Amino acid sequence: MNIAEYIIKKMEELGVNDFFGLPGDYNFNILYAIKNNPNTKWFGCTNGLNAGYAANGYARIKGFGALITPYRGELTAIETIAEGYSECVPVVNIVGLPSTNQLEKYHFDNEAYMNTFSHITAASAFIKKDNAKQEIDRVLSIMVKERKPVYIAIPSDVVKVKINDKYVDYNWTSNKENLNYAAQKIAEKISKAKRPVIIGDVLIKRFDAEIEYKEFVKQSEIPVSNFLEGINIIDMDYEKYIGGYFGNYRNPIAQKYIENSDCVIAVGTLYNNQNLFDYKKAKKINNEIGIYGTYAYVDNKLYDNVKMSELLEAVTELLVPAKIDIDRPNTGYKLKSSELTPLTSDYIFSRIQSYIKENDIVITEIGSSMHGVAQMKLPPNVNLQFQTQWGSIGWATPAAFGACVAKPQSRVILITGDGAQQATAMEIGSMLRYGLKPIVIVINNNGYAVERLYCRDTKENINDIVQMNYSKFARVFDGDVWSTKAVTSEDFDKALKVTQIMNKMCYIEVCTDVLDTPHLTQDIIYSVKDNSESESEPQQETWQMSDEEIEKIILATPGSGFEYETIVHKSLIDNEDNNEVSSNG
Amino acid sequence: MNIAEYIIKKMEELGVNDFFGLPGDYNFNILYAIKNNPNTKWFGCTNGLNAGYAANGYARIKGFGALITPYRGELTAIETIAEGYSECVPVVNIVGLPSTNQLEKYHFDNEAYMNTFSHITAASAFIKKDNAKQEIDRVLSIMVKERKPVYIAIPSDVVKVKINDKYVDYNWTSNKENLNYAAQKIAEKISKAKRPVIIGDVLIKRFDAEIEYKEFVKQSEIPVSNFLEGINIIDMDYEKYIGGYFGNYRNPIAQKYIENSDCVIAVGTLYNNQNLFDYKKAKKINNEIGIYGTYAYVDNKLYDNVKMSELLEAVTELLVPAKIDIDRPNTGYKLKSSELTPLTSDYIFSRIQSYIKENDIVITEIGSSMHGVAQMKLPPNVNLQFQTQWGSIGWATPAAFGACVAKPQSRVILITGDGAQQATAMEIGSMLRYGLKPIVIVINNNGYAVERLYCRDTKENINDIVQMNYSKFARVFDGDVWSTKAVTSEDFDKALKVTQIMNKMCYIEVCTDVLDTPHLTQDIIYSVKDNSESESEPQQETWQMSDEEIEKIILATPGSGFEYETIVHKSLIDNEDNNEVSSNG
Repeated sequence: MNIAEYIIKKMEELGVNDFFGLPGDYNFNILYAIKNNPNTKWFGCTNGLNAGYAANGYARIKGFGALITPYRGELTAIETIAEGYSECVPVVNIVGLPSTNQLEKYHFDNEAYMNTFSHITAASAFIKKDNAKQEIDRVLSIMVKERKPVYIAIPSDVVKVKINDKYVDYNWTSNKENLNYAAQKIAEKISKAKRPVIIGDVLIKRFDAEIEYKEFVKQSEIPVSNFLEGINIIDMDYEKYIGGYFGNYRNPIAQKYIENSDCVIAVGTLYNNQNLFDYKKAKKINNEIGIYGTYAYVDNKLYDNVKMSELLEAVTELLVPAKIDIDRPNTGYKLKSSELTPLTSDYIFSRIQSYIKENDIVITEIGSSMHGVAQMKLPPNVNLQFQTQWGSIGWATPAAFGACVAKPQSRVILITGDGAQQATAMEIGSMLRYGLKPIVIVINNNGYAVERLYCRDTKENINDIVQMNYSKFARVFDGDVWSTKAVTSEDFDKALKVTQIMNKMCYIEVCTDVLDTPHLTQDIIYSVKDNSESESEPQQETWQMSDEEIEKIILATPGSGFEYETIVHKSLIDNEDNNEVSSNG
Repeated sequence: MNIAEYIIKKMEELGVNDFFGLPGDYNFNILYAIKNNPNTKWFGCTNGLNAGYAANGYARIKGFGALITPYRGELTAIETIAEGYSECVPVVNIVGLPSTNQLEKYHFDNEAYMNTFSHITAASAFIKKDNAKQEIDRVLSIMVKERKPVYIAIPSDVVKVKINDKYVDYNWTSNKENLNYAAQKIAEKISKAKRPVIIGDVLIKRFDAEIEYKEFVKQSEIPVSNFLEGINIIDMDYEKYIGGYFGNYRNPIAQKYIENSDCVIAVGTLYNNQNLFDYKKAKKINNEIGIYGTYAYVDNKLYDNVKMSELLEAVTELLVPAKIDIDRPNTGYKLKSSELTPLTSDYIFSRIQSYIKENDIVITEIGSSMHGVAQMKLPPNVNLQFQTQWGSIGWATPAAFGACVAKPQSRVILITGDGAQQATAMEIGSMLRYGLKPIVIVINNNGYAVERLYCRDTKENINDIVQMNYSKFARVFDGDVWSTKAVTSEDFDKALKVTQIMNKMCYIEVCTDVLDTPHLTQDIIYSVKDNSESESEPQQETWQMSDEEIEKIILATPGSGFEYETIVHKSLIDNEDNNEVSSNG
């Protein structure tokens, strides 16, 4: 077995059977390794940016992902790796380099690209003949532990060198002492609390702790909420579900419980202004318990090397169920009847809500699409994917490509906007090339709607884009697709019905008025716009740990794992004041 | 005048009236400054990568370019900035950041992105209220001198601060002593030479020295050649033109003169394996005279702070015309008659050759398109643009967008391939949005043809792409376009004729056999493939200065400017052994 084949085999052991990227300079032997392995498959993309998002979408469903780029081509994908870093989406970026002789002879700076990627990956390696196994195992095991992207560069001669392929298990287990102590402390605090509440979020999915989290929630009988990306980890019909907590928007019940709680248990929470929606205005949350992928903290003491799933299991064993009655939230849209009237976001999202069924995967673009989906009442086991932290416009379409490949037995529904669609549209063609069958809903409101709302003048032509016939666009590729354009509620209703008898990709352009967006979008923007425009001094946060507090915890708790911890907190702090909803790019 | 307005004004003074990018987080006030200036205009693109290439294409025609990205969005464009760095294409990347208060409060690492960009820009700056003028002037003047990209990040509050807009001239002049001494040395060497020859290349265009170079060539009467990117700086009909020098391919006359010369005068040469085509096999070139943008060397002594245009002028004054008769090369294709037979590269490029007329701008994608154009005989004043150094697949389409904006009075002809088109296709829509009228020729050979030729098996499906109806694709946008598909020679001939009566974008899909490529492509690939596949030790170069020699020169010549010099040589060395023709990404 050669080195290329070894990497591919290790990825296969992690559940990665599919590799995304582009063929080119110095990566052919890596692609041959994929083709030579009967259990792995190559998926070509149209450019590096799209390939990176596709691997990202795949990793969100399958746990891990892989991106193969040619020499220098990794720079076209660097933004997607940064996105994965900020949201714990573990993708390995494997890059083909010129041969060792070539690199040495011309004094190539082997570490130039690696250094660039070191800022946005958990680990990176330059593979040589004599360090191959150690470095590959090191980097991939860090990816497994930290669920963040890693980078591996391999010269074109090195990939062909034989390697000892002795099995190495990349799994890690908790520090037992820290685990037991943290579990006891958490159980104790919960038992003393009068008004405990759980907030669960997306990192529960990323760190593969859904089963243990659901059991913890069920056994504890504590009221439970979530941030945006944590929607539907707990079934919306669960009797202690108080609805999502998105700052002070649209759910006074979650607000009441969380903001008056004496013990908030935060599990896998990702803090940013999109996931929590203007949380500057949320009242102080007493979140003395935080459970993360590789560590936990209780009362400002940090316990490192503690695995989320193991800690949740340990806490669950120690708990006495709480006796708290809750008010049930009114979640979801009321479906309106379809009519021959122009489409509005209200109708669109209420109709999509009724269309989504168990086991669907829903990939939603940042911006108004996300706000529309955020307010849905959905059946159990719908896998929702958002991208709130980095906010890359155009992420959703290639991510849907990745999701379709990751789980062919599930229906994948892609909800995106016209501006975002244009950013990465060509991956519609890639999906057709591979016979994939997502339901694609492109909401066409003629430009960057969210940016329009932020602007001094909503008619500013800086937020215009070229108009195009989206449903015709989907048919320019050599592939099996049904596409249509919906202008009225009735059109859209019928179109969704038609998709149910089609066994192919369905692509629906949905037209709305230029400024038509979900109510949530408008609420958010109008509440933050003044502040953003006036550049006034942001208000002091008191409910979030300060840098000094974080530092105190770190200093007080010797051991490994702090670097990661710091990074998580740093990233939430960095993004805290980002008042605008999306980042074009 | 506020800081944003000042930057826009300074760019306007450099001839930049048009700005490319995307609207979004924290850059609105910069876009307002563009709109408020009656002489500047905003051009929205579909994503960051494409916006970067568009600014790059604009800079190649107008001298300088500007890219505006939202916060974090610059990472989607970083590859385009690296490309510009490697080829001296001066683009300023202006990035909107959150406000100073936000950055300070959350301990944002102001320099995180700037550090990333510092590796691939000549200068970068983080603008504060109290350093704004100095930093903007510093960074832009470095861009003007070194003709490389620069990076400017500005917090959203700082852009609105008032600034002293006193005029600063960014022009620089040579160190007179170095200039005179270098000119004398060069003139002396030339006068003593028996077989002098000039090789001129693309950096002559970038450093704005075309007039002085042409005068130098004309007055000296020395035989003159060029590398690929330097095609047509000297008219092909000029009596001392010996044709292009692309290694040992297809032009024995240039080979003979150059490889037997006792004095090669290299002017603005860019050394890489695409521009020179497998120059490893070229014989020793005695290039003791090198004239670059900001320095020159003669007999291994380096003269820094010497401006190319001023040095050429000074040398020209000192010269006595040479008396050398030359053999004229057979340049160009013989036009074949159009027939109802399937299209071949031979016909396509011979027909395009006859189609190109004076003052056209021709933007050619890397790969087989480039090799087809490389062998044309063209009329004077055709501005050819290639991108050999970095080799980004997909560069040409957005670059054509930039070129159309830069020079609306010229006809822009874009020649690209199907794989490249798919990488950045959506900018066809952006061009239509702005009513631009390029002639777009997409050569559809069903996949990555050059990669196919490099592969172990030309039928490898890793080099396939999705088939699409390109001519139909061009019509999905709301814009004025005529598009067609050519399958036979007659189709293509007619299509090109039709374009001459159309006053709109013309988009022609040109279909060829899967492995049909220009002869030059096949020559190059088959000669380097064995070496590339076998990973054998590359042969020692002797005609190029070694690292030790470069270092010796640097040490021997105190003064400033060396960093840049080293980088130029480093980059040529880094790319020297890149045996493959293109880098997907």
